[in-house]
Amino acid sequence: MKISARNMLKGKVKGIIKGPVNAEVSVELPGGEVLVSIITSKSVENLELAEGKNVYLAIKATNVMIAID
Amino acid sequence: MKISARNMLKGKVKGIIKGPVNAEVSVELPGGEVLVSIITSKSVENLELAEGKNVYLAIKATNVMIAID
Amino acid sequence: MKISARNMLKGKVKGIIKGPVNAEVSVELPGGEVLVSIITSKSVENLELAEGKNVYLAIKATNVMIAID
Amino acid sequence: MKISARNMLKGKVKGIIKGPVNAEVSVELPGGEVLVSIITSKSVENLELAEGKNVYLAIKATNVMIAID
Amino acid sequence: MKISARNMLKGKVKGIIKGPVNAEVSVELPGGEVLVSIITSKSVENLELAEGKNVYLAIKATNVMIAID
Amino acid sequence: MKISARNMLKGKVKGIIKGPVNAEVSVELPGGEVLVSIITSKSVENLELAEGKNVYLAIKATNVMIAID
Repeated sequence: MKISARNMLKGKVKGIIKGPVNAEVSVELPGGEVLVSIITSKSVENLELAEGKNVYLAIKATNVMIAID
Repeated sequence: MKISARNMLKGKVKGIIKGPVNAEVSVELPGGEVLVSIITSKSVENLELAEGKNVYLAIKATNVMIAID
Repeated sequence: MKISARNMLKGKVKGIIKGPVNAEVSVELPGGEVLVSIITSKSVENLELAEGKNVYLAIKATNVMIAID
Repeated sequence: MKISARNMLKGKVKGIIKGPVNAEVSVELPGGEVLVSIITSKSVENLELAEGKNVYLAIKATNVMIAID
Repeated sequence: MKISARNMLKGKVKGIIKGPVNAEVSVELPGGEVLVSIITSKSVENLELAEGKNVYLAIKATNVMIAID
Repeated sequence: MKISARNMLKGKVKGIIKGPVNAEVSVELPGGEVLVSIITSKSVENLELAEGKNVYLAIKATNVMIAID
């Protein structure tokens, strides 16, 4: 499957906090930065996410903002 | 200013395509990956974005999806 | 590839309006309803979208609102 | 009321999981597919959502991605 | 119609820039602040938006970020 | 820091409901309207949000819909 979302980053799951509806998944990029994703707890189960698992982060370009100092 | 968006990545503007309403801004991360952002053309002007400028990409955690192979 | 977005709908591309940055893609579902997607014009090229092509619509659950009469 | 969101789909509430802040609402479309929406638990109360209730799903076109096999 | 989006603000259309796909609509709130909305140019037509028209801005709570100085 | 999000509104925190992952933050605008934001509970801590604190609401223009009666 190939998706229209323009941004895909490789990473490894570093931690998961599961709530009754949503979960917070921390993913470490190869350079060491940690990004955070909120998906449903059901998606965490569907994708069998667990610490150490290799994943991709997918982000639609419209959802990327730009900031300057 | 400090914002609730959990994800901030440093980068450098690599290219800008300006349309009448929206613009596509490509930003290169230190590791070489290029991420793409869609913001308004007016924001490109407000932030005086141009090739080579140092910027941050800001992404709300809800807008980060996870994919697996 | 499997993605955390909870909603996937099969459809067929019915029309594309390409602007300099974004494109509007109309997709017909099997039941006849037509849904509209805004993606970058570059994604239209990357996915080689054209009228009649079979596609999936992917929608993160957070982006689905509910309305009542 | 008429809204700018381009996509409106009729459906029937099939299930609700309520958390302290957000709720996951499953909605069955006439063709049998089930879509999932995350809204606040307060919105579930405001709209008096319950199993079997007729609703519309409203989705802004920018939030619809396209995928291919 | 009543929608799950938690935030509704009354305003008056102040200006419209129409592109081939998207349009930028400026809306003035009663207090004088001007908010900006990007919707499809087709939605501008569907809602017959024009300068001076009374409208509501609708914003899903997930899409509201918080910043501090 | 200056961000591409086009909409910034000043307000004061009126209430916070913290869940295990997400939190609902109510913010009162100078005119008395109350807007609602969903951010992660971790962001509530990072920004040290509490009742009465002065904040800005930041909203990307793409996430503002328009409705008419």
